[in-house]
Amino acid sequence: MPGNKRRISITQVTEWKDGVACRVDDCIAGEEPLEIRIGGRSFGVTLRTPGDDLELVAGLLFSEGIIADREQLVTISADDDTDINAAGKGNVVQVRLGPGAQLPSEKSARGFSAGSACGVCGKASIEELRNRGISRPDGASRFSPKTLCELPEKLRAEQAVFGRTGGLHAAALFDARGEMAVLREDIGRHNAVDKVIGWALNEGKIPLAGYAMLVSGRGGFEIVQKALVAGIPLLASVSAPSSLAVQLARELGLTLVGFLRGRRFVVYAGEERLNIPAPASAHSARH
Amino acid sequence: MPGNKRRISITQVTEWKDGVACRVDDCIAGEEPLEIRIGGRSFGVTLRTPGDDLELVAGLLFSEGIIADREQLVTISADDDTDINAAGKGNVVQVRLGPGAQLPSEKSARGFSAGSACGVCGKASIEELRNRGISRPDGASRFSPKTLCELPEKLRAEQAVFGRTGGLHAAALFDARGEMAVLREDIGRHNAVDKVIGWALNEGKIPLAGYAMLVSGRGGFEIVQKALVAGIPLLASVSAPSSLAVQLARELGLTLVGFLRGRRFVVYAGEERLNIPAPASAHSARH
Repeated sequence: MPGNKRRISITQVTEWKDGVACRVDDCIAGEEPLEIRIGGRSFGVTLRTPGDDLELVAGLLFSEGIIADREQLVTISADDDTDINAAGKGNVVQVRLGPGAQLPSEKSARGFSAGSACGVCGKASIEELRNRGISRPDGASRFSPKTLCELPEKLRAEQAVFGRTGGLHAAALFDARGEMAVLREDIGRHNAVDKVIGWALNEGKIPLAGYAMLVSGRGGFEIVQKALVAGIPLLASVSAPSSLAVQLARELGLTLVGFLRGRRFVVYAGEERLNIPAPASAHSARH
Repeated sequence: MPGNKRRISITQVTEWKDGVACRVDDCIAGEEPLEIRIGGRSFGVTLRTPGDDLELVAGLLFSEGIIADREQLVTISADDDTDINAAGKGNVVQVRLGPGAQLPSEKSARGFSAGSACGVCGKASIEELRNRGISRPDGASRFSPKTLCELPEKLRAEQAVFGRTGGLHAAALFDARGEMAVLREDIGRHNAVDKVIGWALNEGKIPLAGYAMLVSGRGGFEIVQKALVAGIPLLASVSAPSSLAVQLARELGLTLVGFLRGRRFVVYAGEERLNIPAPASAHSARH
């Protein structure tokens, strides 16, 4: 695994404040390309913060539907071949897939394909997930508002890199008592989620019934999709979801919470998993 | 162009606050897939907020190096063919490219390829840009700290959709006097930037010498790359850049400003374009 040197780099910058300029040392979040090779052939290159790369690749292959379980990932390893120069060391992951793995011929690492036969729209995107066999997350766990409201502070307290750089996204899993199971960071929101899912895959914890996932950024369609593929029943974010994320969460039965800040949150879907009082109807929400 | 109905959708949600739950109406940022077809063949699908789609596609093709100028885009139009169902209407853009356009056989709409021959690393990624002929942005404009510090407020004041949804990224161009030339919003940071660049391409304003671009999110490698391709001399963000973004800005001569908040900002590269006093050296930066 790459050392901290590549997760954070320190460089001299100029800080301007109220008319005064200073040369200071600054910590910057690491970002480097990572190439995924499947069966020796390049599958794609993604930009990520070095660290937990094998989890990232395993999680990405799983959440994108290339592999359906850990067994279909026959081997996965960092490639330190001599044909890679020093600066690129550790930036290639070699994967060998087993029977059952489905490698789309034209799907890139970050690709997204909607069924063009039935039109390009949100409905088609959701239908495609159903066709992959993705369904309502299992698990009878219910989450209390109190536990939920404590999660952002726990995430922030554990965010080792963010505190120094101000530049990394995080994703973390919590059980219904609010205990953190894992936290991963990355410059990319999707990567942080894929690292968490890759961790769960390696630990034999998929489907992640009984867990809530908290993400530091917004909850768009792709984040909801990854949560559903991993069987996570509750996805919470400190920020806003998108229209398609809400639609997907409602149709496939994920509990989707947004604007989780202080003693307030908004439930966009699946409130039956939350121990909250029966709602009264009122005004418009204010963010 | 899609109406506001698809840029913002209104839905009933449950707002929980201090133990009280209410059913309320909420505005959510629109997100739908957009398929790009080049010469009738699918080039890729990207998730975006409907609106300014032709600018998005033009900007994407330009910033990814598929087209080198507006002339290589022979036709570009929203596809309302009868084989697309009602929900998908407006979610396909048809493009015909002229001589000189370079369609990479294996490049996806959001793809990123590093030269594997010379290794997968930041240096190779930067080298690839040089090979595309991208060089230091022109223009002798200098930006004052006062003007710079006023930009985030101007951006926020103009953000029509964000104010209602809390969920959209924005990118905007300003001249050296701080006058806004254009602002575009999208659920995706990259899309907002591509829409701005597509607008400039249509207006014949490329290269964008003399302009500063402000983005609402973080400044990663891909955002810096897009700014450089469009010839923008100054990129500012309210948040942190990545290590590779800083490296690229320094090597190709872009002025990169981060943490632009209130009366403070951090200059990561190219401070010669800013009218700031000679810096003293000091402590570490605090974000």
